Formats: sequence, structure tokens, C-alpha cells
Amino acid sequence: MKTTSAFFTFLTVITSFFVVDMPAAVDSAKDQTVNNESRGDPVVFETLTVRKEGAVLFAEIAAPPMNLLGPELVRNLVSLIQRAEADDTVQVLVFKSADPDYFISHVDVTRIKEYREEAAKLTGEASIALLFRHLSASRLVTIAQIEGRVRGAGSEFVLACDMRFAARESAIFCQIESAFGQIPGGGAAQHLTRLMGRARALEVLLSAEDYDAELAERYGWINRALPADALGGFVRSLAHRIAGFPAAGRIAIKERVNAIALAPAEDFRRDSDLFGEGARSPETQRRMQAAMKRGFQTRDAEMALARMLGDLSDD
Amino acid sequence: MKTTSAFFTFLTVITSFFVVDMPAAVDSAKDQTVNNESRGDPVVFETLTVRKEGAVLFAEIAAPPMNLLGPELVRNLVSLIQRAEADDTVQVLVFKSADPDYFISHVDVTRIKEYREEAAKLTGEASIALLFRHLSASRLVTIAQIEGRVRGAGSEFVLACDMRFAARESAIFCQIESAFGQIPGGGAAQHLTRLMGRARALEVLLSAEDYDAELAERYGWINRALPADALGGFVRSLAHRIAGFPAAGRIAIKERVNAIALAPAEDFRRDSDLFGEGARSPETQRRMQAAMKRGFQTRDAEMALARMLGDLSDD
Amino acid sequence: MKTTSAFFTFLTVITSFFVVDMPAAVDSAKDQTVNNESRGDPVVFETLTVRKEGAVLFAEIAAPPMNLLGPELVRNLVSLIQRAEADDTVQVLVFKSADPDYFISHVDVTRIKEYREEAAKLTGEASIALLFRHLSASRLVTIAQIEGRVRGAGSEFVLACDMRFAARESAIFCQIESAFGQIPGGGAAQHLTRLMGRARALEVLLSAEDYDAELAERYGWINRALPADALGGFVRSLAHRIAGFPAAGRIAIKERVNAIALAPAEDFRRDSDLFGEGARSPETQRRMQAAMKRGFQTRDAEMALARMLGDLSDD
Repeated sequence: MKTTSAFFTFLTVITSFFVVDMPAAVDSAKDQTVNNESRGDPVVFETLTVRKEGAVLFAEIAAPPMNLLGPELVRNLVSLIQRAEADDTVQVLVFKSADPDYFISHVDVTRIKEYREEAAKLTGEASIALLFRHLSASRLVTIAQIEGRVRGAGSEFVLACDMRFAARESAIFCQIESAFGQIPGGGAAQHLTRLMGRARALEVLLSAEDYDAELAERYGWINRALPADALGGFVRSLAHRIAGFPAAGRIAIKERVNAIALAPAEDFRRDSDLFGEGARSPETQRRMQAAMKRGFQTRDAEMALARMLGDLSDD
Repeated sequence: MKTTSAFFTFLTVITSFFVVDMPAAVDSAKDQTVNNESRGDPVVFETLTVRKEGAVLFAEIAAPPMNLLGPELVRNLVSLIQRAEADDTVQVLVFKSADPDYFISHVDVTRIKEYREEAAKLTGEASIALLFRHLSASRLVTIAQIEGRVRGAGSEFVLACDMRFAARESAIFCQIESAFGQIPGGGAAQHLTRLMGRARALEVLLSAEDYDAELAERYGWINRALPADALGGFVRSLAHRIAGFPAAGRIAIKERVNAIALAPAEDFRRDSDLFGEGARSPETQRRMQAAMKRGFQTRDAEMALARMLGDLSDD
Repeated sequence: MKTTSAFFTFLTVITSFFVVDMPAAVDSAKDQTVNNESRGDPVVFETLTVRKEGAVLFAEIAAPPMNLLGPELVRNLVSLIQRAEADDTVQVLVFKSADPDYFISHVDVTRIKEYREEAAKLTGEASIALLFRHLSASRLVTIAQIEGRVRGAGSEFVLACDMRFAARESAIFCQIESAFGQIPGGGAAQHLTRLMGRARALEVLLSAEDYDAELAERYGWINRALPADALGGFVRSLAHRIAGFPAAGRIAIKERVNAIALAPAEDFRRDSDLFGEGARSPETQRRMQAAMKRGFQTRDAEMALARMLGDLSDD
């Protein structure tokens, strides 16, 4: 399992800082000896651009047109996590988005089976809930730097990270599942109930409403809302500070905190199963189709998705 | 157990007082013989006026002179819950008050045995703690729209609701029991400790102080404080949004959240028993009498109840 | 175990420094032979000055030059707790500091074995975690009135108190341990995770950053931040209000809340053991020495301790 930090020096593609419409996606290539990383050049996956800076990896999500969580992004996340965990020189992992309007929009509902199979490559289970829980339990410290929309599994991904900081002006949070008759399948009920208590978690989960960064902070959904122009600097500084402390403390702290506040795997598994069952129900199918007709999974229509979700029953 | 929504067309009394200017709610109720409900006319209990609007019931508490929780209100709540749970066309239940100064003041301490017996008609146990817990576990989604005072069991009633929104200008929250040497008997310790953590829960429970809506929001006692003139519209819109989503999602979400954050019945039962034992102690009896002499359970004296509670030991 | 309140009349020294202008507290203490206490004169330990006012004890920490938690302060705290718990006339214990810049800075890292042995005199276990947990489980209600810095075990001490109110202008909170590769040993992980949830607890514990009172309030680290000039009056009034209510309610409330929110003794013990093991690791030792060279455990250098902690790896 143990590799060296050489991984992050291989498969490097020269790209001028952060190329959004990314070409080369060579995921499984090992054993390259090119050493561009040491010059700070990013490593490019199909949907992720990863830059190493000391002991911190900055992974930028770029899955146009709207950062849906589909099989490609799940496959790339699995690769990134595996390699980073195996590399002793990596301590902290920062996630951000190349798209100012979408961090991760939600899962691609047309490809549930496919992305679940990609998740299984990390955990042995076809469920992103278990993939996300793996990240929470990892020795790596993970920080989400959020601009734009995180809805559904996008929200659940950032909830799986150890910390979440969001741009006050642009970040939007939503658990969309109840609008389709479903429970979130990636752990939102587990995390939100523990973070914000029963009443606010029920409000968020039952309403499928959009929450801005300020309200998300008040509810405990995120650590803090920060001005967009201060966000990157704050997160970078925090990441390096944490990465500079000894590994033993970080590992002990994550273990002890997780023992209290990270739900057991069987609870994530149960939510994931309930989501899967729900997805096959006629009512959920009907709502999905109604949403698709109104532009669900298109960039423009989802800018104001919460409003659309409130209208599906009128069809 | 199954009845029809025809219940909500039964016992209808036209009262201009309770009919607010809402558009008529035409509901797909089966089996209607009398059809006043479809015109938005309210159903009137002794202490509750209930109006149905689509899949949402709005129950307004009116137990003059100060909305004490006595046998009548408990009996009416039990009836309302039973019928609403048995009616498939009802999804969401909103509670509000006809009295701008008192939502529910607290239990009528002169009639503990009586109201407990009314509660037993729903749960088989003579305890409002178990009645309140039944509501939290119900398939119905419940929302408290709070203006005025909620103290003692009044606070515990809204804590049993799934969500709580309060008027910034008028809502006041207080757990009065420690002033009498008691622990709250209706679940406040269970809910508040989980919502606001050990230190704030101890402060609230030990101080018997009044908390305004803004501080109640900061402590997590309520979901949000809103301007009084926006409160009704906000809650109505949220209730209809939630009611319009499929039942399967709502049920799964409440079950999963309750599995994490709703205390076991035995803990509610234990608090209820401790309250009952406390009520019979000489010190509590003496304090109750001292409070009665100062106007406890009268509308005017309770406007500033928290101050009075601080003076009982001086007698 | 039972002594009388006469203890608090014993060892009294008139010191103009500690006598604040409060009205004389005449208490119904039995068995008084020397009666200075009834004039409001303080009882002076080596590092604590204790004044009794009715059923409330005000304990002021004064361990110059910077209120380090060493064997003297632990010994005095143990004495104070033992006597106060044995004295039926004492209900509430307020802790404050004589030093406006330091409430309790942190443990004296050069005397870990010594202060642990002092703690064992109360609990039988050489750990301040168990001492602190004893205080949380005590029948006494404890309130921390915080001005200045509470870092490391200083923060853990106030977390063990039942309530915490802090001066908005001067209070600073920090868990410094991760900067040395350690987990906090006095219960911070147990309390903070339950108070602020997984993400904010991880941020606080992993970053070893300073948090001001306003942010500490938002995160739930403290009950409330108050203006410095209102803090003392607020706490005194709250303490007397609580002390004036019957003991039976206080005891039941603390028991029921602790059953939900106070971690089991074995979890405090485990954290304490992990801290002790960490303290013996070469990396932690190296970091401690680097910190010492930069002025760790000196009053001036610790005014901006968080910055220093971020630089230790550069040595």
C-alpha cells in the first residue's frame, strides 16, 4: 500500500495554473519519472487538478458543465484518496472548485449504478456513503473550500470533509432528496442531525430549500462563512499550519473525535440502501422525469433549483 | 384507527374570529358529506381552532385567559393528533396561538392529575412527556409558530414539534421548574441538552430565566427568530412546501433523524416521574403556594414571571 | 467527609487587593468560631482567594506570574472542592482570575508528574482529566467568569465548569496540544466535540489557533460573550439566582443533563493516558524544547502564543 510522494511527481502535465476544460485523464498511469511536480505544476485527472504545496494537496474539481458527481469524478476521487493516503509526505487535502457557481451540484441521477461501482473500488461497497465515510476516517485532514452550489451528494461530500469554509457571497447548500421522496443516501442525515440538532436537521432535510452561507454557518452546516476574497488565503494558511504539526497528534485527535461524532458504518450503509430503494419507486421516478423536463441536471435551470423542486407536484 | 378527512368537516362552527383571510383550500378529501371545510371554515374544539388548507392543518390554541396547559387543552390535542394521524390527506400540522402574549404559558399546576389522565388516552401513560414524544415520533410533520410566552411545558411542547419559528419581537422562552425545586417533566432536559449542549442547557434549566427569541435562536432552542410580520407567511409557505413532497421521504427522514436525536421513551418517562415526585415535596409545595400568592397562573403577574421566580425564597 | 462552613472562616487574611466592594455577605454558617467570613473577608490559599457571599463562593485564581496550572493550583483546587462539597451552605462556585491577561494559561509542562499527583488526592487517579470530571459531576454548580487567556488545560478547566461566560474584549481560547503532537489530556476533545460538533471541534483541536470570545460563543465553546464591564455583575446575579432555588432541582437537573452530555470517566482517562504517552515522545519533547527557547511559559511570549506555535517546525 505504501508508495512515495513520487506519485505526485508523475503523470504531471504542464498547464497554465488551473485549466478548466481539462484534457488528459490518465488515471491508472503509474511509474512515471517525470518530475514536474517539484516545480509546482499540477497533476491533472479527468475531473480533478491536483497541486502539491509542501505537505498540502489542493484538489480542484472541474467536471463541466456543472460538476455533477458521476463515475468520472468518483473514479478520480478514489484515485486521489488512495494515492494521497499512501504518500507519507501528504498530510492535508484541500478541495475546491474551478467553477464559481458549482462546487459539486449533486449526483448524476442517470448514472447511479456506474458511480456506485467506482466507489466500490475504494471500500468494496457500491455506495458513495461508505466512500465519504472512508474520507472522514482517513489519517488525512480534509478541508472543503466552498464557492457555488453544494446540493445533495455535493453537500454530503463537504460534510464528510473534516472542515468546511464557504464564500459568504456565493455558496449555497441544499439537500434536495425529499423533493423526490427520498432520504439523502450519502450521510447527510447522520452529519446534519449531529451538527445542528433535530429541529434544524429536519427543517433542512424536509424542506429541500437553498441555504446561503450565512445561515449555513448559523446552523452549523459549515465551520464559517468568509468573504470570497479572503477564503482562499484563510484556507491555505490553515492547511499549512495543520500540516506543519506532528502526525501523531493529528491521528489521535481524529480518532478520538470520530469515536464520538462520526456515525457507525452501518448507519451510512442503511441511509445508502434507503436512497437506492427510493430511487426505484414509481413516485420518485415520476418526480425525476418531471424535474428532467424542467431542466434538472442542466447548468442554467439549476441556478434556482430549490424553486423548481417546489413545483414538481403541480405536473 | 383509520378515519377519513371527513372528521375535519364535522363539528364545524362558523366564527368570524378564527377565519383569517386565506384563499379557500380545496382538498381531495374523500367521503365528505358536509363540506364547510372545503370553504376554509375552521373546526373548533374547546381550546383549539383547526383549519385545513390542502394537506396542512393550522391549529390555533385559544384557552383563555392565558393558554394554560390543563385537561381541556390536553384532551383537544389528543383528539387532534389521533384524527390527523388517521387522515391520509393530512401531512403537516402547524401550531400557533390566538393570544399574542401567551403561546402556552405552562401546565396548570392545580390540575396535574387531570391533564395527565387526558394524556393517557393517547399513549396509555399518564404523562405529557410521552404525549409529546408521540408527536415527535409521528409521521406528521409539526411546526410551531411562536408568538408570546412558552414556559415550562409550553416550551416542552414546542420542543416536541419538528421545527420551531418564533416572532423576534414577542416570543419568550423559559424553563421555570428549577425555581420550584423540580426538573422539567415534559422532556426539556432531553431536548435542550441535545440541541444546545451541556453548558447552555444547564444555564437554561438551572436559571429559570426568560430568554428572548434572538438568544433562543443563538442557543438552538428554536430554528430561527423572524420578524413578527413575516412569521406567518414564512411558516405557511414552508408547511405547504413540505406537504407537497412525497410521504415516503418524509417518513424515512423523520425515522432516521429520530433514531439519532430523539431520546428513548424511558428517558422521557424518568423525567416525568421525577417531576411528579418533586411536585409532592414540601419545599416545592411551599414555593408553589408562595408563587400563587404573588399571582402565579394569572395573566398579568406572569408577564414578568422570571422576576417573580427569583423572589420566592424571600418569603 | 462532612465539615462545616467554618472552614471558610479559617485561614483568613485581610488583603486589600482581593477585597472588592461588595455588601457584606452574612451567611447562616454554623459553628463559627472566628467570624471574619461574615464580614465578607476572603479566605486565601496559596493560589486562590475565596470569598463567600450567601450560598455562593467566589474563587479568584492568582498564581503569578501567569496562572500556570501547576501542583500548587491543583492542590488548592482540590482543597476548595473538597471543603465546598462538604459544606451544605455552599451551592454555587464561581471561578475568576486576578490577572486580566491570564485566566489559566495551561499546565506547567515541567511539572506534569507533580500536578497529577495532587489531582490524585481528590479522585485517586493521577490525572487532571478525572479531577475536572469530578467537578462536572459535583452537586455544586460551577460558573467560569473568564477574562484573559484560557489555553490547553485552562480551556479544559472552564469546559469542566457547568457554565462559561467570557469578556468580549479580552478572553482568548486555545487548545495548544496538537502543535506539540499531542491530544488534549484534560477532556477538551470530549467536551468540544459534543458542544460544537465534529467539524468545528476538529478545526479547534487541529489548528491550535487562538479564538476570541465572539467566535468562541458562535462555536458554543462558551455560553456567551459579554462586555467586560457587565460580566461580573451578570455572573454574580446568575450565581445568586441559581443558589436561591432548592437543592433538589439542581441535583436532579445536573444528573439528567450529565447522563446525556458528560462523557464516561473511561473516555477522560483514555485522553489523559494518550496525553501522557505523547508527552514522552521524542517529537513532542523536541517541540517543547523549541517552544521553551522561544519563551513558552513566560508571560510576555505567551501573549501571542498561537503565532509562536505555528513556527516551531522551522527550528
